[in-house]
Amino acid sequence: MELDKVGIEKHTSKQFDVELEDVRERVLTMGGLVEQQIANGVKALVDGDGGLGEEVSRSDYKINAMEVAIDEECTKILARRQPQAGDLRLVLAIAKTITDLERIGDEAEKIGRMAMQLAGQERPTSAFRQIEALGRHVRQMVRDALDAFARMDTETALAVAQHDSEVDREYEGVMRQCITFMMEDPRTIRHMLDVMWAVKALERIGDHSTNIGEYVVYFVGGRDVRHVGMEELEREVKSGQRNAAKNA
Amino acid sequence: MELDKVGIEKHTSKQFDVELEDVRERVLTMGGLVEQQIANGVKALVDGDGGLGEEVSRSDYKINAMEVAIDEECTKILARRQPQAGDLRLVLAIAKTITDLERIGDEAEKIGRMAMQLAGQERPTSAFRQIEALGRHVRQMVRDALDAFARMDTETALAVAQHDSEVDREYEGVMRQCITFMMEDPRTIRHMLDVMWAVKALERIGDHSTNIGEYVVYFVGGRDVRHVGMEELEREVKSGQRNAAKNA
Repeated sequence: MELDKVGIEKHTSKQFDVELEDVRERVLTMGGLVEQQIANGVKALVDGDGGLGEEVSRSDYKINAMEVAIDEECTKILARRQPQAGDLRLVLAIAKTITDLERIGDEAEKIGRMAMQLAGQERPTSAFRQIEALGRHVRQMVRDALDAFARMDTETALAVAQHDSEVDREYEGVMRQCITFMMEDPRTIRHMLDVMWAVKALERIGDHSTNIGEYVVYFVGGRDVRHVGMEELEREVKSGQRNAAKNA
Repeated sequence: MELDKVGIEKHTSKQFDVELEDVRERVLTMGGLVEQQIANGVKALVDGDGGLGEEVSRSDYKINAMEVAIDEECTKILARRQPQAGDLRLVLAIAKTITDLERIGDEAEKIGRMAMQLAGQERPTSAFRQIEALGRHVRQMVRDALDAFARMDTETALAVAQHDSEVDREYEGVMRQCITFMMEDPRTIRHMLDVMWAVKALERIGDHSTNIGEYVVYFVGGRDVRHVGMEELEREVKSGQRNAAKNA
């Protein structure tokens, strides 16, 4: 979908459109890499693949570099174009989105490191099946958040936040199971703690995805919806849609 | 110290100076509240004071509200003043600083919640003495980061990053001790996990403080120093000082 179809007017300067489209595409490329890092991190953890874990841990610098480059580009656009209203909100939403993407990358890196430490260790199958499922759900959240960002679609952005409470429940379940293993066999404590840090990292990735969804709602509706709670978030998305329909 | 003494030129519009000074003061007020939350959270944890823990957990909304308000103010300044160069970097550094301050607030809230859960439980004195020391050091990092921000002082900003590796070492020590307690008496596993989550939150506060220090270096030198590693960070601060001396 083109930028002009998602509520941003065409600019008198064609070059400005090109710049905005370029930075937006770079965010999506960065998002794709982040998704891949999560997928590999979880796979390394579940399969006990230390080599893959190391690869994840070593690849994080690419995400960091992308964040710095996109951030610089945003600063240049602000300085050169002095965007107003929706354009300004878009640039600011991008700057915030990449901060959360970068931190998702950090969490994926941690999962990779834990996978390295846990490679070759015995692993309780049931817990790891649950972790695999949690990893799938969290990745879906990241994908939905990026999809909401790509299409500036508040409905999808809202779905991310709604998904987060399910993920939190699943997370609690895995954690409880880890505690049970520890109590049954205290010799597993050290390893189970590494598992728990990785699971915690997955839960945080869910939180960061929710943040990205909130920036989309902010961009579209102009209202900052962080910290407002789910009900108000739903109201905001609906009222934003009514306004959009009126203006159509 | 006045803004004009920290490298920002006086503006033709006096009103702009007032706006920048106002937003900067609000960041420092927010920082003061965040510091207080950490202090109370750690006190609640160490003293087993559930009431104080609850107060910390309930007060986080104030920090969230401050973040949203300051962020809005930054957006207005960008739209109205279209700042360039150093002014633009200042506004962007402020926007990033408050994101990290807000997340420090979240971590303090978690410590408060853990303090509530742990109130009335038996607590191993040695571990809690170590946690108290760790809490003191982490608070010092936050204070230094805010101080670096207030005076736009890269030397202090660098000290924050240097302090972070000490804090990480202390953190590892406390964690090891917690694991030992768990292994010696598996009945303590659940409680010790709550302790560990709180300790983890302290470690993260250190990381966020380091981020704030890096924004100060970015503002002063114009170079993004996230992810560069300690040696390069030191070089950057020194070269920034040389440039400042040349221009003086």
